Amino acid sequence: MGEVCAVVLAAGDGKRMRSARPKVLCEVLFRPMIGWIADTLAECGIGDVCAVLGAGADQVRAAVPQFSWVEQRERLGTGHAVMQARAFLEGHRGGNCVVLCGDAPFVDAKTLREAYRLHKQESAAATLVTAFLPDPTGYGRILRDGQGNVSRIVEQADADEKIRRIQEINAGTYWFSVDFLLDALEQLRADNAQGEYYLTDVIGIAAAQGRRVCGYEAADSRVAMGANDRKGLLRLNELARQAQLERHLDGGVEIICADGVVIQPGVQIGPDTTILPGTILKGNTVIGKNCVLGPNTIIEDSVVGDGCQINACQIEQSRLDENVKIGPYTHVRPNSHLKAGVKIGNFVEVKNSVIDERTAVAHLTYVGDSDVGKNVNFGCGTVTVNFDGHDKYRTVIGDDCFIGCNSNLIAPVEIGSGSYIAAGSTITDMVPQDALAIARARQVVKPGWAAARRLRLGPRKK
Amino acid sequence: MGEVCAVVLAAGDGKRMRSARPKVLCEVLFRPMIGWIADTLAECGIGDVCAVLGAGADQVRAAVPQFSWVEQRERLGTGHAVMQARAFLEGHRGGNCVVLCGDAPFVDAKTLREAYRLHKQESAAATLVTAFLPDPTGYGRILRDGQGNVSRIVEQADADEKIRRIQEINAGTYWFSVDFLLDALEQLRADNAQGEYYLTDVIGIAAAQGRRVCGYEAADSRVAMGANDRKGLLRLNELARQAQLERHLDGGVEIICADGVVIQPGVQIGPDTTILPGTILKGNTVIGKNCVLGPNTIIEDSVVGDGCQINACQIEQSRLDENVKIGPYTHVRPNSHLKAGVKIGNFVEVKNSVIDERTAVAHLTYVGDSDVGKNVNFGCGTVTVNFDGHDKYRTVIGDDCFIGCNSNLIAPVEIGSGSYIAAGSTITDMVPQDALAIARARQVVKPGWAAARRLRLGPRKK
Amino acid sequence: MGEVCAVVLAAGDGKRMRSARPKVLCEVLFRPMIGWIADTLAECGIGDVCAVLGAGADQVRAAVPQFSWVEQRERLGTGHAVMQARAFLEGHRGGNCVVLCGDAPFVDAKTLREAYRLHKQESAAATLVTAFLPDPTGYGRILRDGQGNVSRIVEQADADEKIRRIQEINAGTYWFSVDFLLDALEQLRADNAQGEYYLTDVIGIAAAQGRRVCGYEAADSRVAMGANDRKGLLRLNELARQAQLERHLDGGVEIICADGVVIQPGVQIGPDTTILPGTILKGNTVIGKNCVLGPNTIIEDSVVGDGCQINACQIEQSRLDENVKIGPYTHVRPNSHLKAGVKIGNFVEVKNSVIDERTAVAHLTYVGDSDVGKNVNFGCGTVTVNFDGHDKYRTVIGDDCFIGCNSNLIAPVEIGSGSYIAAGSTITDMVPQDALAIARARQVVKPGWAAARRLRLGPRKK
Repeated sequence: MGEVCAVVLAAGDGKRMRSARPKVLCEVLFRPMIGWIADTLAECGIGDVCAVLGAGADQVRAAVPQFSWVEQRERLGTGHAVMQARAFLEGHRGGNCVVLCGDAPFVDAKTLREAYRLHKQESAAATLVTAFLPDPTGYGRILRDGQGNVSRIVEQADADEKIRRIQEINAGTYWFSVDFLLDALEQLRADNAQGEYYLTDVIGIAAAQGRRVCGYEAADSRVAMGANDRKGLLRLNELARQAQLERHLDGGVEIICADGVVIQPGVQIGPDTTILPGTILKGNTVIGKNCVLGPNTIIEDSVVGDGCQINACQIEQSRLDENVKIGPYTHVRPNSHLKAGVKIGNFVEVKNSVIDERTAVAHLTYVGDSDVGKNVNFGCGTVTVNFDGHDKYRTVIGDDCFIGCNSNLIAPVEIGSGSYIAAGSTITDMVPQDALAIARARQVVKPGWAAARRLRLGPRKK
Repeated sequence: MGEVCAVVLAAGDGKRMRSARPKVLCEVLFRPMIGWIADTLAECGIGDVCAVLGAGADQVRAAVPQFSWVEQRERLGTGHAVMQARAFLEGHRGGNCVVLCGDAPFVDAKTLREAYRLHKQESAAATLVTAFLPDPTGYGRILRDGQGNVSRIVEQADADEKIRRIQEINAGTYWFSVDFLLDALEQLRADNAQGEYYLTDVIGIAAAQGRRVCGYEAADSRVAMGANDRKGLLRLNELARQAQLERHLDGGVEIICADGVVIQPGVQIGPDTTILPGTILKGNTVIGKNCVLGPNTIIEDSVVGDGCQINACQIEQSRLDENVKIGPYTHVRPNSHLKAGVKIGNFVEVKNSVIDERTAVAHLTYVGDSDVGKNVNFGCGTVTVNFDGHDKYRTVIGDDCFIGCNSNLIAPVEIGSGSYIAAGSTITDMVPQDALAIARARQVVKPGWAAARRLRLGPRKK
Repeated sequence: MGEVCAVVLAAGDGKRMRSARPKVLCEVLFRPMIGWIADTLAECGIGDVCAVLGAGADQVRAAVPQFSWVEQRERLGTGHAVMQARAFLEGHRGGNCVVLCGDAPFVDAKTLREAYRLHKQESAAATLVTAFLPDPTGYGRILRDGQGNVSRIVEQADADEKIRRIQEINAGTYWFSVDFLLDALEQLRADNAQGEYYLTDVIGIAAAQGRRVCGYEAADSRVAMGANDRKGLLRLNELARQAQLERHLDGGVEIICADGVVIQPGVQIGPDTTILPGTILKGNTVIGKNCVLGPNTIIEDSVVGDGCQINACQIEQSRLDENVKIGPYTHVRPNSHLKAGVKIGNFVEVKNSVIDERTAVAHLTYVGDSDVGKNVNFGCGTVTVNFDGHDKYRTVIGDDCFIGCNSNLIAPVEIGSGSYIAAGSTITDMVPQDALAIARARQVVKPGWAAARRLRLGPRKK
């Protein structure tokens, strides 16, 4: 996009959110609002960004470490905020700068690009992003002259009846010629009722100079939306959530009931995959086609192949190949890889393990720090004992093994292919291929013991 | 309903749904749309049905194997689709035929029956099902003559202002005299802009012959609703879901919050039963009164007696007698029968087992392929070891047994009534009544071992 | 509030609810409607309350044992209901009485107090609570005279066009001078179409006596809302649920998606705590700040400190100190105390136990009736065996212990600080500090056994 930079206004505190965090860190779909802005700028290829920070500056810097920043000590209006970035702007003389609000997360790359195209083409001093709202109450109205240029922005409080009927509003995103902006900032005055420096006064300055100010009407009025309190934030979440649902419906995803379904923007889902209620998909997650996800499933930063069934599970930073069937109540923790046709059943945890094709882990089992072969059958209650209280070790299990119920495999240990672990065994040493390993006591029966005990103890308490 | 048959138009592909499946297999409340039609025809006693199939014909035939079928190779309009069924219709000369769309799932038996009654009574050539829509945009409008007979159907594109204001629309379901229909199909021409044979042109043919065409206005306008894409399909699901919720509210079911509650049409629920959020009830499921179901519970093809509490569980093809209390996080797999007063707790799986009255399985246990008596107490971590890696066997447990924690019962095995299994035992042989069975090693203590080890290994890594 | 008492009309049966319970026991946010009234009266300090009961009187008395009561054998109108309380009212001569409907749960303390203030200030015979409804259809309309006093209540059926346009309605809550009320009840007649005694006729009696009748318009029209059937009850639940969500949003709670989130009125939540979908908070629950709750979590009668993360868990009557992290799929049963920094993982049940700081119980474990020290590490599959089939005992575990996987600790037992339990051990006796305790059989290997068996048995069946 050429010689461009950005200033992001991010100095707001969380007072009206009743938050100890700065406002721009309040989240929409699990991502801070300023993160949405950062994603959009990155998508536009705008790498040189200056954030104007106020309360909680450290927290914001941690969230967007790629931004440079300045601090706005006092909060004296949007014009004053941009003034803090003067040194940054001086470094971009001759170019153009986009100024955005850090708490208006729905500004999109297409809008920024198209507004910039108009701005360049018209050699404008400033180009405002505008939006058309059925109910514009509360927003600054856009007045255009006969040529379609923006002549003025009138705030709600200053608008007469006629102006209040104008439905084109200021979305709060602006492209500026840096040279013009630096000059205009010098001329801003705080001689108004609030005693603040308004960035919108820059428009009048351009007009007075006979400079051109364009208005780019965004296709989607959501670009103008921000949140001042938690109710507003919930509304932003609802809008963002709905937009993602529609994106996936358009892509052929089947949703029976969208209640509790929350999908982050980056997620990809193949057609003919069904999403059941209560499913949350986050991060860099890619889902194949013909899957069934949910209900009540969380998948984060994971890749799921075609034809998988994931019923009431939580999966983090893992990979499932095609036709894997897991759940209900399975927890797949980071760095796990379940290969094609693997079945994991109820109350099973898998962590940092590779489980090869068609292996079944049906119930109440922990597979951690393990490399498991193909066609292995885990009995119920099996534990790969990866931690000795001091250090962690791996368990290696060959193909076609049978691991008996309630057995412990004490790592580091290797279970040879085709071997058989008797139920109830604690395995401490390597098991050769095709062998039986057993480590348990023989059964002893004491006839009549239970009857005698009952007689002695009387009726059961519970 | 006498000499009647049906033709179901089911040749649509899933292109606009972005589905590899044919359109009529897209699902509403977990049932393919053509399955809804099949249910309604069965409810009307209409057994002789011909489906007109196109893309994915094999898949549709598998879904409705009871239908006969013809293939529509080219897609040349609804009239052309019905032409493919000519041979089928020839076999029903003298009778009447209902023509339905396979992707309009809400046509109900009452509407079909009442429309047929009108059709017969009036000796009509054709009787259309119509609906009254507040916003009829997009639908064919019904024009009636002075006697109330349908004189014409005018499609949206051909309607002038006056006709567009007509709110009675063509629902896409028709009764025909078979003889008339066969004759009229001969006269259909594709001499229109689309080059298609329109079934609705049959109405004009009837008028030209001086034959009567009736319009039966359905009580519920949902009969006209279909879906063209996934958003439309979600809307159908929402409507169907809401209708089921209302049915159960009317029946005395208590719903605090309906979010994520999805109930299939065939499910029965007794009064004073409470349904909590996230509860999905499917298939042939019958729930008693005074139960509490949910949150986040799935019950499929199961019978649940009065007074049961089912908290965050999944149950398939099983039976729970009265006052059974299960959950949270219990999985009851097919062919299980939990008798009165049974309690199953957290992280327990039951499969293909009978558990007799008042037995308690409180935690982290697998009961599979087992017959369990009354008043048995399962300790935590118990496993009925039903699979030896080659074959499956049953476990039989008598009344009043105590099964110690983390024990294995290796099937086939019988545990006599009143007996006591010591914790940590792996039981391989029959245990007589009232006996103690124990199979574990004695405790050995090595004083100072842990302290010395800590000294040797240094601080814990994790 | 001085010499005041209350009469609660609670004789309605559950017929239209299709409930076997009396109507006032139908629940809003898990609390019977009459419980809402009881809470409000308690908040106002009105301790002397007489409930007029009908069907299911015993059940209602059990729900509000603090109320005195009378029975209304026949249902002859609201006036007749209050007549049953004559003896109760005689005991409050010289004072004032509020009459409320037991099935209008949203009458609030502020409204009762303000209406009483007006009633006293104006020395009124009666003061009605009124509400302003955009659509007043179905409610009795309030007619006021030139001085603003209520002159008449006109029921929907008796209202002409002009009166039907009045939007101020009778909310069904009344303050009366007891002396006036007792006198007026004598004059009530059932000479109307229904043959019932209407409490609203008392207004006409006051007017005839030249007594003053005030109308207090409640700030929130929900005071007038009741439910006649399950659909209406669901609406009350939705309103109450929404009001609670808004209360917590205003307090700085973050809600991404409110689906399935149900919070009872008494719950407190700190700012910057996030509530995920499907979270149910009940009873006397206090949540700290900076927590993440949910998805799909139930917390009842519990205290949760700052910074806790609770993912897909159920918690009852327990206490979590700060920075406790539990889930997914953890069940904390009553009388548990998890101290600061404790981590409880998947498929773990804790019951009636104290777990000290920084102890980790990662997976598939039961900790019941136990006192556990600091920094203890529980392996997977561990069971504190608290029940011997007859009695329950406690397990005591010192600081810094390591409890090996799949081990049983058979209570009563004490595990000394710093000791180490070998995996697979069943511990029956006290383990001294810093010792190793082991109780398992040695591993035996039978080479080739598994291969030979496969040869003998042939291919696996399942």
